[in-house]
Amino acid sequence: MPADYEVLTDRMLAGDKAALAKLITIVESRAPETLWLMSRLGGKSGQAHLIGVTGPPGAGKSTLLDRLIASYRAARHEIGIIAVDPSSPFSGGAVLADRIRMQSHSLDEGVFIRSLSARGSVGGLTRAARHVARLLEAFGKDIIIVETVGVGQNESDVMRLADTVVVVVVPEAGDTIQAMKAGLLEIADIFVVNKADREGAMRLKAELEAMLQLRPASAWSVPVLTTVATDGKGMDALVSAMGEHRKFLQEGGEGRARAAAGRYEEFLSTVRDELASRVERSLSDGRWKPLFRQVRQGEVDPYEAALRVISDEKFVQSLVKSSRAR
Amino acid sequence: MPADYEVLTDRMLAGDKAALAKLITIVESRAPETLWLMSRLGGKSGQAHLIGVTGPPGAGKSTLLDRLIASYRAARHEIGIIAVDPSSPFSGGAVLADRIRMQSHSLDEGVFIRSLSARGSVGGLTRAARHVARLLEAFGKDIIIVETVGVGQNESDVMRLADTVVVVVVPEAGDTIQAMKAGLLEIADIFVVNKADREGAMRLKAELEAMLQLRPASAWSVPVLTTVATDGKGMDALVSAMGEHRKFLQEGGEGRARAAAGRYEEFLSTVRDELASRVERSLSDGRWKPLFRQVRQGEVDPYEAALRVISDEKFVQSLVKSSRAR
Repeated sequence: MPADYEVLTDRMLAGDKAALAKLITIVESRAPETLWLMSRLGGKSGQAHLIGVTGPPGAGKSTLLDRLIASYRAARHEIGIIAVDPSSPFSGGAVLADRIRMQSHSLDEGVFIRSLSARGSVGGLTRAARHVARLLEAFGKDIIIVETVGVGQNESDVMRLADTVVVVVVPEAGDTIQAMKAGLLEIADIFVVNKADREGAMRLKAELEAMLQLRPASAWSVPVLTTVATDGKGMDALVSAMGEHRKFLQEGGEGRARAAAGRYEEFLSTVRDELASRVERSLSDGRWKPLFRQVRQGEVDPYEAALRVISDEKFVQSLVKSSRAR
Repeated sequence: MPADYEVLTDRMLAGDKAALAKLITIVESRAPETLWLMSRLGGKSGQAHLIGVTGPPGAGKSTLLDRLIASYRAARHEIGIIAVDPSSPFSGGAVLADRIRMQSHSLDEGVFIRSLSARGSVGGLTRAARHVARLLEAFGKDIIIVETVGVGQNESDVMRLADTVVVVVVPEAGDTIQAMKAGLLEIADIFVVNKADREGAMRLKAELEAMLQLRPASAWSVPVLTTVATDGKGMDALVSAMGEHRKFLQEGGEGRARAAAGRYEEFLSTVRDELASRVERSLSDGRWKPLFRQVRQGEVDPYEAALRVISDEKFVQSLVKSSRAR
C-alpha cells in the first residue's frame, strides 16, 4: 500500500474528518488498494449499531431521520449517515432535495453524512455502502444509519448489510405498498407506519401485523410502530425498539447466529468483489484487444471468448500478481 | 466436459426437447461444466430476436404474451419463453397462476416455456436467463421472449439482455407507475398502454410521450402504442413495431453499436460469473474451515480474512486448476 494511504488511514483513525472523506472517495472509486486499506482498519468491526432505514418515496423518511439523529445526538452518540441513492438521472431531483434538508445536521461535528449513488454497476452500491459503514465504524461512529429510497433489489441488498432494518410506510401509499409488500416484509426488523395521524394508519398497521404472521417463526417478533415524525410522536418508542433489536442480536442464540452469518457474508462478498476488480484490471491490458474486437463484431462467440480468457495461464497469473504487488 | 454432456448437447442441437430441458437445468444449477457447455453451442449467437416484456403486476402482460405467441406462431416462428420470477415466497401465488394460464401454449411443439426463479443470489437470475436464452437460440428458436414481473433492479438487469424491451403499463396503476417511471423510461424500446379502452389511457400515453422527450436523442424514437390485449386490438401494430426495432438494431449504426456492446457485456459477465463460481468451489474445500469459523465468531476481521485468502498461492492455483480439469 502506498505510504500516503497509510498516513491517511492513521490520520482518519486519529479522528481527522477530511482524511475520512478522502478514504471514502478512494474506496468508492474501487481503487486497487481498497482491500489493503480496509484490512488495516483494525479490530473494531461490529462495534457500531448499523441501522437500515428504507421505504417508498414520500414516506417521510427524511423527517424521521432528522428526528432520529436528534435523539441519538441527545444521548451523546456519534452518528454516521450513508444516504444511498440508486435513482436514475430522471428521478434525481426529489432525492437531492431530501439530502439538502438533512444537511441541517451537517454542521454538527458528531454527525457525518455521505451520499452514495448507483453508477450502474450491479452490486456496486452494496459494496460501497459496506466499505463506507466499516470506515465510519473505524472512525468511531457508534450509530451508523444507511438510508435508501425505494425498495428494489438494490435497496434490499443494501439493507441486508444492516443489523436492524426499519421499514417506513405511510397510509396513503396503498398501491405502492401492495406491490412492494413481499419484499418489505422479508427485510423488516421493525415496521414504522409514519404520518399515523392520517386516515387509514390503523388499518395499515393491522394489515401489516396480519401479514407478518406469515413470516417463519422467530425469537424476534417484528413490531409495527406508529409515528408522526413531523411532531416527534412515537420517536422514543422507535429508538427503544431499535435498542431492543440490537440486544436481541447480541444476546440471543438466533441473533448471534445472524450476526455470524453477516460477518461471513461480508468476507465472501469481499473476496468476490476483489477478484472482480482484478479481472477488470487484468482485462484492460492491451493484449486482449483483438479478441474483444472479434467479440464485438460477432466473429467470436462471447462464451468461447470467455473460456479462452479464463483458460489463459497469463490471465490467471495476473490475478495472483496483483495480489502481491504494492 | 463429461461425455454424457456432449451427447446431451448433440441431442439438443438435433432438436430433442427433453435434452434441452435437461441442459437448462444443468446450467441453472451452476454446474462446473456450464462454461464449456455454453461455448460448445456453436456460431448461432444473435440469430434470434430476443424480446423483453416487463411492467408492473396487473398490467395484463400474460394476456398480451398469449396474443404475441399466437401472432408469431401464425407467422411460423419458433418461440421460446423465459418467465422470470424474482418474487419472494410471499407473492408467489399470483405469478404462478399467470404461468399456468400461459401453459395453454405448452402443447404446441413450436413453443417452449421455462420459468426461472430467484433463489436469492444477486445477478443469478440474469446469468441464468442469459444462458437459457442462448440455449433456446441454439435449439432453433428465432423469437425468444423474456418476461419479468415488476421493475426492480433484478428485472432491469434481466431486461438489459433483450434486443427489444417492451414495457407494458395500464391506466389504473397511476401511483405505481409514478414511482417506477424513471427506471421504465430508461429501459423501454417500446411502450404499450394496455387495457386502453379504460379511462385515462390517452392521458397516460400523452404523459409517457412527454417524459420520453427527456431521453437523450437517439435514432430510435420510442413509440407509445395502445392495446386491448383481451380482444387483440393493437397487437399487429405492436408486432410490427418490434420488427422495426429489430431492423434498427441490425441496420443502423447506432443499433449495431448497441448490439456490439451487448455481445461484449455478455462476454464480460461470463468471465465474471465463471470466476465467482470457481471461487465458491475453491472455498468449499476443507482447509479454510478454521478461518471461516474465526470470521463467524468475530475473531478475524472479514476484510483481513479476504486478504489472506486472496493472497494465498494455493487458492489462486485452484482457480487455475478448475480451468483445466475435465
